[in-house]
Formats: sequence, structure tokens, C-alpha cells
Amino acid sequence: MPQPTPTTAELIDVLQRLRAHPPLVHCLTNGVVKNFTANALLALGAAPAMVEHPQEAEAFAAMADALLVNVGTLGEAEEAPIRRAVPSAVTAKKPWVLDPVAVGPLAVRTALARDLVAQRPAIIRGNASEIIALAGMQGKGRGVDSGDPAEAALDAAKALTAQSGGVVLVTGPVDYATDGQTVCACHNGHPLLTRVTGVGCAQGAIVAACTAVAESPLVAALAAAVFVGVAGEVAAERAQRPGSFQIAFLDALDALDADTLNARTRLG
Amino acid sequence: MPQPTPTTAELIDVLQRLRAHPPLVHCLTNGVVKNFTANALLALGAAPAMVEHPQEAEAFAAMADALLVNVGTLGEAEEAPIRRAVPSAVTAKKPWVLDPVAVGPLAVRTALARDLVAQRPAIIRGNASEIIALAGMQGKGRGVDSGDPAEAALDAAKALTAQSGGVVLVTGPVDYATDGQTVCACHNGHPLLTRVTGVGCAQGAIVAACTAVAESPLVAALAAAVFVGVAGEVAAERAQRPGSFQIAFLDALDALDADTLNARTRLG
Amino acid sequence: MPQPTPTTAELIDVLQRLRAHPPLVHCLTNGVVKNFTANALLALGAAPAMVEHPQEAEAFAAMADALLVNVGTLGEAEEAPIRRAVPSAVTAKKPWVLDPVAVGPLAVRTALARDLVAQRPAIIRGNASEIIALAGMQGKGRGVDSGDPAEAALDAAKALTAQSGGVVLVTGPVDYATDGQTVCACHNGHPLLTRVTGVGCAQGAIVAACTAVAESPLVAALAAAVFVGVAGEVAAERAQRPGSFQIAFLDALDALDADTLNARTRLG
Repeated sequence: MPQPTPTTAELIDVLQRLRAHPPLVHCLTNGVVKNFTANALLALGAAPAMVEHPQEAEAFAAMADALLVNVGTLGEAEEAPIRRAVPSAVTAKKPWVLDPVAVGPLAVRTALARDLVAQRPAIIRGNASEIIALAGMQGKGRGVDSGDPAEAALDAAKALTAQSGGVVLVTGPVDYATDGQTVCACHNGHPLLTRVTGVGCAQGAIVAACTAVAESPLVAALAAAVFVGVAGEVAAERAQRPGSFQIAFLDALDALDADTLNARTRLG
Repeated sequence: MPQPTPTTAELIDVLQRLRAHPPLVHCLTNGVVKNFTANALLALGAAPAMVEHPQEAEAFAAMADALLVNVGTLGEAEEAPIRRAVPSAVTAKKPWVLDPVAVGPLAVRTALARDLVAQRPAIIRGNASEIIALAGMQGKGRGVDSGDPAEAALDAAKALTAQSGGVVLVTGPVDYATDGQTVCACHNGHPLLTRVTGVGCAQGAIVAACTAVAESPLVAALAAAVFVGVAGEVAAERAQRPGSFQIAFLDALDALDADTLNARTRLG
Repeated sequence: MPQPTPTTAELIDVLQRLRAHPPLVHCLTNGVVKNFTANALLALGAAPAMVEHPQEAEAFAAMADALLVNVGTLGEAEEAPIRRAVPSAVTAKKPWVLDPVAVGPLAVRTALARDLVAQRPAIIRGNASEIIALAGMQGKGRGVDSGDPAEAALDAAKALTAQSGGVVLVTGPVDYATDGQTVCACHNGHPLLTRVTGVGCAQGAIVAACTAVAESPLVAALAAAVFVGVAGEVAAERAQRPGSFQIAFLDALDALDADTLNARTRLG
């Protein structure tokens, strides 16, 4: 039986749990966005930690509350900590999140990400092109930009959930979260979110933080979509250009509360 | 016969082409400035991508519209992707840009950068000390700061163009672009640009973006000098200290338009 | 005989020397904070340089005025430049600073940091859990957050000074600097400083900058504590949320002067 679509009240509950007991999020992420990702987690109320030595990453994945794996600037040295941290998180029953940045046109990360899908990520977060490519279908991605609308990736997203046993969050002008049966849409967001590097990557880390505290991965994925989308809307009311928008976005994550979410959340 | 000095109208044309068809810029750059570089490219209107695995970097250099190689934090792992991406870009007839950060006092990057000059970078961008050292002459550089005025590097710059077959942009209080015959000066800029880390490195990426769309490397180099200089002037009218100036600079790149360039460009 | 507690006038003297002759600070630091660290040094008035290739790091450590070693994102590639730069700095009689980020729960960096203590860092800067763990005692640290109050680390700090022959700066709501005999407290600071990633790491670099110009490591450690604490207080009067606070903090480092330090420094 399909899970019911999460309510705004459930998303607010995720935020309140996260603030009450900040989850420690182990981020194995790309070099472009480490600083912004850490600041986004801190602004929202979570605790970031980037532990990257293969041996330490294996140990730390079992200590942290959730793990993010983002393959955005995968190099030869980045594969080992990922290969060791993921099974460690799985063994310790800690949820982990896969962000398959630019999977499709780039061979090494594509092979790695497909391997990782079998290790049961709680949530996979990507744009339409990445989700289509990860599922082994044909997409139009070029670098980190999606050439496909999110809607075009829904079949691929459902196919991936069958492989991973988890949830897929497809991001775009409208975001979709699905566990393979229920499909939830989030209509929050703002075009300026695409003018700042690393917003999507930071969202992957927020997905991980939410997964550590939410009732289900579907609720966590939708919460992360709404938190980022609403913070983007609030920020765009204060800043109209990308430099100042980036700062206003961090401030808006910090300011996020039940009233703001009740007033702005647009599911459906 | 020397090329005529580019006009402001030609620089505006570069900006408009870049906005109409955002070039995908492959950045192999240093770890201090990856985030700021990506945000500067996005703010101006280009599309950044940092693809660093040696195998992926080789493949991606042929897919992207231009390549930037910046040796600022060269480590043992950073040399392989550079060595593979540059010939790939050359073979695919994509322009590439060399930023020889701190070449001179540091041996490994100096040897690498000299090797790379033979691979015909469309543009080499550096401060006077870096350009002098890259040409094998004696300079006064210490770390990333230039100990020499830009004017002192003009002979070295011309010597380098003879080796590379391309253009050299020497940056300083006045910037100079030369293809070996024509020398163009840009008088735009502001001292606060030297108080934010990575402005010069981001300019290297902007040079690469402009090279992908400009009529000639000389026009591209001068366009990048003017865009950064003018954005710095605009930002300094809004922010007088380096933290807020950094943000205002990104906003100013986004706000750059024909009117601003017509009013502020100072060539000659 | 114990050294007298440094006075505010001595801390102002450190700032004025630093501005008059900007020390070149070689930073071997973690990938999350490189950009922020460089910007914090530039804002205060020092000159940052991140030189990371093992061979270049060895050479550069002897050229720079001070060296910072921060093990925050230690990977397999990061150990070699640290192992080569530290003895080079020591041989060249340049002061070096150790920031033992997350030492304790993570084995590889803990072993490395303990080795490095024997190489006589002028200053070790860490939170209470890190200092307790580095001294081989039992702490409560989890990732980068301290589970222990700074006061609980004073015995460990003194024990470490006996091993290193230098000064230890324990940071927390109150910071303590000790050379093993004199203990100085700094009461400046603001809770928002803990909501921005890399403030502590940037402080490690500021410690290194101060060590290059101060009369003694004790004065340098206390100066860095006060500079960061006062800049945080000034920033918190301008910005109440972490995104804009981060920017205001950089601006406040730039604005720091004798009047501000005379009015705000709280020692004792």
C-alpha cells in the first residue's frame, strides 16, 4: 500500500527534531562545495564533519548519524574513503545519501555510483539527467546542469528505488520525491538557487541530516526539498543578485521555523 | 601587421555572447579558490565544471568549451589531470588558459608550467613576477604576491607569446594584454581586489570563459581584465571592507552590462 | 619565574607589527576552510599561501614567516607535505603552529599530531577535547565539537607545554593561553562564532601570523584569541544570522584597531 504523502506538519517535525538533537553528518563531498555545505548544515542546525582519510572515514561513518557521498570532484584519492565509509555506515545501520553529480557523461563516477546504488542508499538525490543516467537510461546532461526536466526522470527514479530499496529525490523547478509508489512534489524554490555553486550539493547534505531524524526517507527527502526551496524564496526577497543571495540563503536556513514553513510550503 | 587595439564595443560583444550561450568552463584550479571561481563564473553568466579525475579530466576537456589550468595548490595528485586534460583540449581544438600561480620560487610548478607553455595556451594570465619567471627571467615574486610592477614584465610577456603562439595577460594596478605585437592596457580596478583571496584565480577562469566566445584571444584577455576591473570598481562603491566587498564583487559581475562598460571601461 | 600576563598594549603592538610588515603564513590546512582562512588572514592584514606539494611545501616552509599545520581533513596525500614542511620550518627557525582538529576519536590524525608535538610547535591551538586527547588523557570530543569545557583542559594544556616547549591555546567560551606557568584568560567572543565553519581553523592561521611578529608565543596566542573574539563581538552587532555574520566577521578583522581593542579586550 502506498505511503501517504507527507504533510507540512511532518516536515516541521523534522526541523524541530534536527534542532533539538543536531545530527552529526559525515560529508564525503566535492572540493568546490565543502565550505558552503558545512555552513548550510550549521545554519540549518545540524553538525557537519568532513573526515576523508580512508581509515578514518571508515571509522567515522559508524560514529556519525548519517553519511553523504557526493562524487562531484571525484579523484583517484576520493574513491577509497567512499568505498570504505559506505559499508561501514550500512553495517552500523546509519542512513547514507548518494548525490550522483554529473553521472552520465563521466565514466569513472558513473561506474562508482552504479556500484553504490546496490549498497542501499536511504536517499539518492540528483537532477533529472543524473537520475536518468544512473538508472542506465539515456539523458541529456552536460556537466552539472540537467538537460532534462524533472518530470522526465520519474520512471528512472522509480526504477532506481527498486534497485536501492530507498527513496529518490529528483530536483528541478519542481522537485519530486518517490519511494517507488508514492510520488510527492515540492513546488518551492527560486531561479537564483541555480546561480550559486553548491546549492544542490548542500541540499544533499541536508537530505542526510534530515534522514538521520525523520520518520521515513520519504519524509526526509521532501523536508530537504522544502527547506531549501523555502529558504531560497525567503532569500530572494532580501537579495536579487547571486553574491548576496548566497549569504541571504544561509541566513534563511537559520531563520527557518514552523510559521515560515506553514505559510510557504507548497506540496502537491 | 599588428592587430588593432580592441574597442569597448568588442568587449561588450564578448559579454553578450557569453550570456547568450554560456560557455562550459572546465577548471583545474586550486583548492583555495574553487568555490569562489565557480561563483564568479556563474555570476558573470558562464557555466563552471571542476572535473579532476585524470581519466574524466581528459574526456571532459574535449567536451567543455574552454579549459583553465591553475597551478596554485599543485600537489602530486593534481599533475596527472593537468597532463591529460591539456592535450585533450588541444586535440579537440578547445582553447585553454594557463595561470602560473607562484611560478618562480617553487620548483615543481615552475617545471610543469614551462612544459605547458609549449602546448600552446590561448592565454597565459599572471602577475608580473609570475610572467617574468615563466619566461625564465629574474623576478621578485614571493608566494602569490608580485614583487614587480606589470610594466617590468612586458618584455617577458612578449617572449612568452613567441613560445606559446598565444596571448599573455599581465595583471597589476594596470593590466596589459599582448599577442607579441599589439599591447593593450586596462586601467580599471580597485585595491580591494587584492584583499580577497582568489580574485586573480577567478579572473583566470573568466579569461577562459571569454576565450570560448571572443573573436580573438587578445579581445578575450582584455575583456576579462575589464570585466574584473569594472566589477571591482562597482563593488568598492557598495562595500569598503574585504568581506562585504567579496560579495559585492559577485553581485557586480552579475550586474555587468553594456551601459556600465560604456561608462567605465578605461583602455589605452 | 612566570612570565607576566600580556597587556592590551602588547596585543595592540602585535596588530600594528602585523600590519606594518605582513607575515607570509604557510597554511597546510583542511579543504573545508582554505578559502575562509586565506580571507581571514588577508582581512587582518597578513599574507596567506597554501603550498601543498611535498617538495614545494618543504622549500616554502623555510621561505615563509610562519607555518600552520591543521589536520582537519587529513588524507593520505596530506601527510607527506606536513611531514616535510615541519622539520624545514624548524631548521629555518620559523615558528609553526599545530591545530589538532578532531584529534581523539580519529586514529590517523591522532598518531600524526602526537608525533608532531615532539617537533616543538610554538603554539598548539585546540578546543578542550582536542587538547585533552592530544595530551593522552580522556575527553568527550565528537568530530570537531568539544564535549569538554576549556577549564577541564588546563592540566592537559600544561602537560603539553612540557612536551612541546611552547604555548597551548585552549579555545571555548573562555579561551586560555598557557606556557605551563602563566595562564591567561580571554573573555571575548560570541556564540555566532560557532555557527560559521572554519572560525577556529582561521584562528589557527591567525595564531601563526601573530607568532611571526609577537614578542613571545604567549603574547601571540592571547593576541589571536582577542582578535577573533573582539571581531566576533563587533560582527554580532551588525549581523545576527550566520551567513551575514561570516561576512561581518571578515569586515571586523579588517576594521580592528587600537581603539577597538582598548575598548573591548577582556583579559584576566
